[in-house]
Amino acid sequence: MPDALGHLTPDEFREVGHELIEWGARYLESLEEVPVVPSIAPGWLRDQLPPAAPEHPEPWPALLADLDRVILPAIRHWQSPRFMAYFPGNSSPAAVLGELAAAVLGQQGMLWSTSPASTELEQVTCDWLVSLLGLPDAFRHAGGQGGGAIQDGASTSTFVAAVAARHDATGGDPAELPRLRAYASVDAHSSVEKGIRLAGLAPGQLRLVEVDHLRRMRPDALAGAVEADLAQGLRPFLVTSTVGTTSFMAVDPVADIGALAQRHGIWHHVDAAMAGSAGADPALRPLVNDGLVTADSYCFDPHKWLLAGMDCDVLYVADRTKLQAAMSVVPEYLRNAASDSGEVVDFRDWGIPLGRRFRSLKLWFVLRSYGADGLRELVARGHALSLELASRVEAHPKLDLVVPAQLALVCVGHRSGDDGTQRLLDAVNATGAQVTHTRLEGRLVLRVSTGQARTEQRHLDAVWQAIDDSA
Amino acid sequence: MPDALGHLTPDEFREVGHELIEWGARYLESLEEVPVVPSIAPGWLRDQLPPAAPEHPEPWPALLADLDRVILPAIRHWQSPRFMAYFPGNSSPAAVLGELAAAVLGQQGMLWSTSPASTELEQVTCDWLVSLLGLPDAFRHAGGQGGGAIQDGASTSTFVAAVAARHDATGGDPAELPRLRAYASVDAHSSVEKGIRLAGLAPGQLRLVEVDHLRRMRPDALAGAVEADLAQGLRPFLVTSTVGTTSFMAVDPVADIGALAQRHGIWHHVDAAMAGSAGADPALRPLVNDGLVTADSYCFDPHKWLLAGMDCDVLYVADRTKLQAAMSVVPEYLRNAASDSGEVVDFRDWGIPLGRRFRSLKLWFVLRSYGADGLRELVARGHALSLELASRVEAHPKLDLVVPAQLALVCVGHRSGDDGTQRLLDAVNATGAQVTHTRLEGRLVLRVSTGQARTEQRHLDAVWQAIDDSA
Repeated sequence: MPDALGHLTPDEFREVGHELIEWGARYLESLEEVPVVPSIAPGWLRDQLPPAAPEHPEPWPALLADLDRVILPAIRHWQSPRFMAYFPGNSSPAAVLGELAAAVLGQQGMLWSTSPASTELEQVTCDWLVSLLGLPDAFRHAGGQGGGAIQDGASTSTFVAAVAARHDATGGDPAELPRLRAYASVDAHSSVEKGIRLAGLAPGQLRLVEVDHLRRMRPDALAGAVEADLAQGLRPFLVTSTVGTTSFMAVDPVADIGALAQRHGIWHHVDAAMAGSAGADPALRPLVNDGLVTADSYCFDPHKWLLAGMDCDVLYVADRTKLQAAMSVVPEYLRNAASDSGEVVDFRDWGIPLGRRFRSLKLWFVLRSYGADGLRELVARGHALSLELASRVEAHPKLDLVVPAQLALVCVGHRSGDDGTQRLLDAVNATGAQVTHTRLEGRLVLRVSTGQARTEQRHLDAVWQAIDDSA
Repeated sequence: MPDALGHLTPDEFREVGHELIEWGARYLESLEEVPVVPSIAPGWLRDQLPPAAPEHPEPWPALLADLDRVILPAIRHWQSPRFMAYFPGNSSPAAVLGELAAAVLGQQGMLWSTSPASTELEQVTCDWLVSLLGLPDAFRHAGGQGGGAIQDGASTSTFVAAVAARHDATGGDPAELPRLRAYASVDAHSSVEKGIRLAGLAPGQLRLVEVDHLRRMRPDALAGAVEADLAQGLRPFLVTSTVGTTSFMAVDPVADIGALAQRHGIWHHVDAAMAGSAGADPALRPLVNDGLVTADSYCFDPHKWLLAGMDCDVLYVADRTKLQAAMSVVPEYLRNAASDSGEVVDFRDWGIPLGRRFRSLKLWFVLRSYGADGLRELVARGHALSLELASRVEAHPKLDLVVPAQLALVCVGHRSGDDGTQRLLDAVNATGAQVTHTRLEGRLVLRVSTGQARTEQRHLDAVWQAIDDSA
């Protein structure tokens, strides 16, 4: 039925919907050719549009035409095979279809009772991911003390973990906050500092721990920092291990860090935003899963390497009661028989928002349409591409492999210095591909991220050609 | 192009996509008949599914068939015209198509440079809403000191406002937290307490201020609480006004509260999650917009009354520099020329997550396909439905209109007491519609929420029939 205004009857929805599916297919077809980075200047899109919404309804052909006229020229093509910037933000046709079905159903899954489908499918898909990736059984809803919940991103999960850790350490007493100290490596993601600040702590309460020559947190340095803080009467409450740092894909020694955290009663959070998906390939599990049994919380982004599309991060906890103790507030108007029975999960208590959309549906589509072996192959391919590129860099007389290539990232520097590296970067980006940069102890580093799902050897060959020509 | 695994070529995407559009149209057609509440017991859906993801890819016909077999029986039909529970979570065909287009494009809008389209369209649509609703000009990106940003829900916006207020009051010093005090009415949404707790404060630091006979916060009681706290050397830092409380749709005296807040240098946040959309009807603006010029931050949910579909809340701030001071952390790997120039907005600094999906696209589709007059009519209809129902309740010898009907909510009690009211509730819900409850000073209250976009007079007539028969 149409809405009460009579806009878009189901037959009109069919008509426009079919046109939009065709538009979407044409967009997918264009990805091979289109340059990743748009050429517009700031303000271009705003200048195309009127200052206010139209007074009267506009016809759908005008809206669809504006997707091409106004939107496409301002798109950074994250789904292009030549997108090798940052980490990938992989969607997939399966995820797109899952988003479509979820949007049609228009669910709001704050409680089991407000969407049994959204709630239970989220439990199921989070449990499926435990098996797919080989994560600890404690992270399961079924039979475990813990469970997983979909969040919008790893930054949010990192903050939620900080809130749970803070509550676990202080019981909610704000007078305890100044004594708290958190720990992460100097290469931890900026969301660790942001999460600490959101939680009410000062940036200085996050100790940035030194790393070894492979950019992994040094457990001895961590132990020293914790002991020094304890000696001063401070309260170490949270240590974040990174599995796959943003700059260099380094993997912290999670087992050692976890053992130290357990010894001192410190909450141990593991941020595996990009690298966690690598567990889909059993060959890579020793690298990315070692020590996870010591984690109180763990997050990774199926929207990065596992094709789920923005936004889809999963936060796992080993003990769900600790998370709920920090997050739950139950007003009268949300009370219901199912929740009171204790038989159901209410995901409102697993994160910040009350309302929640039906994100598990796209995850379910992806997991079923690719199967475990499809996702294993996807991960293995991104890994193989990075090793192949790394071997070329290593063999090149003018280039340095700044750190060993790992998973789906290759870090390159020109031996002549930053100007040379900047020229490499500019040369690659002039081809219509995109790579981005970081710095290693001041040195400019070109990052080539090989986890985009459409990237094939030939796309990487073209990037290598630009690097080689420029070098 | 397909992904590198060859799954779903564009032609296969066309084929499955067209089928899914047909499925979606059939779902929309079913909404007139389907009972809102599913009949399954907890665990039903989980029992339908295997314990792990399939090893090999499953064919699409099996996935689509499972939408009917596994998902639909567990759906609470938020888009049904008989959904009169909570507040509505209105989607619309236009929003569904916007979600589809956004999913195809697979954007990640953390920075202007990572998605100029997502960033600038978010600025444009947030500004359009300022005009549509008649909000203060300070909330505009264009020409204002402030601006709006899409968040996942009002709970998140309420927390983000608390973080900005906390930073404004303390400069980020955690030692100041125990002295902070926040204020909201006893009927404020549970997210106000949750936001306070997430921000590191104890629940007792939120003062719940008394309300008048119409459930509006009493400014004299607020003044008394603030002055008593000041006299004790405490630091009032945040007052939240509610425009349209969840239980009773009461509207706090925002102008008076704002004047008090300004006098004492307290951050003034306005939570208009449901009621804010009413500004689309100029006749209702005096009720919902009065005093908003005193607000430091303001949020409302286009995903409630304004057809945007989960999830879409907009948080406005009057001074964006204060929000960014609280939220911004910039690591090397996110530095870029556009951000460094200061010419662009980077929405990563306007909320919790780093990655952001392209939610403004569906808002743009809704605003253009309905036009300002379509949305005005939508709001006016929900309002008229509530007034009509309220007049029947008032005229009924056995029923009380517990508070005056306002906007799109009618609160009903049976004069015989809670057992009678519970029978009304059960009678309505037995018809296949859904209403929910609240309590007023202990008394059970039936809430009829009339803002679902598909609800027509005949649907409300059927609910009234059940109430009248039961009474």
